Amino acid sequence: MSEQIYVGVDVGGTTIKVGICDAEGNLLHTYEGPTETSKGTPAILQNIAKYARLIVEESSYDWDQVGGVGVGIAGFLDIPTGYVKFSANLNIVDTDLKGYLEQELQKTIKINNDANVAALGEAWAGAGRGVPNCVCYTLGTGVGGGIIIDGKIVEGFASMAGELGHISIVPDLEAIQCGCGKLGCLETVSSATGIIRMAKDAVERSDRTSLAQVDNIMAKDVIDAAKAGDEVAARIVSRAAFYLGKSLAMMAVVLNPQYFIIGGGVSKAGDFLFDQIREVFDKYTQDAAKEGVHIVPATLGNNAGVVGAAGLILRG
Amino acid sequence: MSEQIYVGVDVGGTTIKVGICDAEGNLLHTYEGPTETSKGTPAILQNIAKYARLIVEESSYDWDQVGGVGVGIAGFLDIPTGYVKFSANLNIVDTDLKGYLEQELQKTIKINNDANVAALGEAWAGAGRGVPNCVCYTLGTGVGGGIIIDGKIVEGFASMAGELGHISIVPDLEAIQCGCGKLGCLETVSSATGIIRMAKDAVERSDRTSLAQVDNIMAKDVIDAAKAGDEVAARIVSRAAFYLGKSLAMMAVVLNPQYFIIGGGVSKAGDFLFDQIREVFDKYTQDAAKEGVHIVPATLGNNAGVVGAAGLILRG
Repeated sequence: MSEQIYVGVDVGGTTIKVGICDAEGNLLHTYEGPTETSKGTPAILQNIAKYARLIVEESSYDWDQVGGVGVGIAGFLDIPTGYVKFSANLNIVDTDLKGYLEQELQKTIKINNDANVAALGEAWAGAGRGVPNCVCYTLGTGVGGGIIIDGKIVEGFASMAGELGHISIVPDLEAIQCGCGKLGCLETVSSATGIIRMAKDAVERSDRTSLAQVDNIMAKDVIDAAKAGDEVAARIVSRAAFYLGKSLAMMAVVLNPQYFIIGGGVSKAGDFLFDQIREVFDKYTQDAAKEGVHIVPATLGNNAGVVGAAGLILRG
Repeated sequence: MSEQIYVGVDVGGTTIKVGICDAEGNLLHTYEGPTETSKGTPAILQNIAKYARLIVEESSYDWDQVGGVGVGIAGFLDIPTGYVKFSANLNIVDTDLKGYLEQELQKTIKINNDANVAALGEAWAGAGRGVPNCVCYTLGTGVGGGIIIDGKIVEGFASMAGELGHISIVPDLEAIQCGCGKLGCLETVSSATGIIRMAKDAVERSDRTSLAQVDNIMAKDVIDAAKAGDEVAARIVSRAAFYLGKSLAMMAVVLNPQYFIIGGGVSKAGDFLFDQIREVFDKYTQDAAKEGVHIVPATLGNNAGVVGAAGLILRG
């Protein structure tokens, strides 16, 4: 029973997911409890500590075997100090999360943002297992990102690296304003939100599309319509794939990763989407920067967060 | 006399520059000799080794004090093995440069490409001294780049990271083909070559510009004309600054460096250029990713190469 284990915590607005990983990133146990965001910051912090202890107690492992606890959380952080400057969906402001957990759990604590942590999970023990240099995208409500170089997360000077969704990539004439306040971010076209917006715009413009019959359009509806041959829907998905592929081409000459890992709800479109991304990537990437480079789907699904959070202890 | 010194070699098509640095990157001595490219690869290799020995012999230092020899060279390399796959301007193909120099000099040898090495020089002991995260641009015939994270060069999976000039950033409708074969690379608009091309195009189109009177247009002519109020020239410089600034905005959310360091001939345009770059950067960069971020001119000039090459030993 002397094997070291690592606890990963993925703090969401509704639930907190906790996982135990071994040193290779294999997920041994998971646990999930309510975040209780409405009860305020102290309750959220207590729940994080409580669930971290609980999962170990309920397992066959000893607390002594815990090599550390990593936490992934959405928001603006100061990663080195583990300070949460602002988390919109948890309503947390200026909170010393790392300090609190160190005191409470008496373990090594590492904090990072949810997108970086999901990227580390995939790079460490998912689609990128064994690959030291990966760039990861999560196509969900927004476009999340994380950059792994030599097995470690690139944090940036002010903990703002890896914000791939906010690459300003759409030319001004076609650009709309992003939630971040800037023009033409990748997120405005390649996220589920972006795809839904383009679909609603098309319906409002009275474009001939089967989507006009759909009540509450979701990204999946647009992708399904595109696959079924709806030209308007196909154009929307192509646009999402185009800017995503162009951003990959840029990352290829900037960071030259071996793997691009793409996850999140929109990525479930599968080869229909990936083939288009690969085509654009191929067109815009210098030969030497794309040789041996793979564009692959994420494999951990919703577990990427807990696995990556655990990984912070060994690879953070 | 036990102080360690580091020898940096900057291999150009015409001359090989050599320098001795101390452990802080201060340049103590320089030496320059002919590359003798026309005599073929063996002569070039011998000259590199010869000049590295010579500069130390001519100095007050002992060969025993040499902590290693770093070499910067233009071309496609395999950085970890120090193998030169192809160098167009030296006419070198498939050559084990690192192995040769290890044998010849009996020292630690590190090889990297000229743009990465110049970036390391500036980050280590130039404009970025003391700043761990820097993204560097060299605006010359092409647009060179180098990325320094935690004080070290980002090499990439196939030694192709930092090729900032080949970010495909100009939209297709306005893009021209780059020397690399791809469309819309930053280099096509923000290098001296790009600026000259745009100026010649304007003159050929009979745009009203003072550049029509210039015999052999250089980038400096275009910049000077723009500063003097020539509207056509000003538009060309603005275009170079626009795409450069946009690429910086992208790098800010991808890598979140503290310093952007811009050097090379075109950067001598000074504030006239830098102010425009800063304006574009400010417009397209998310607030949190630009807070405390500086865009500064390079300070080492032509010595960045030898300093950075020496720096490979400690920071490579």
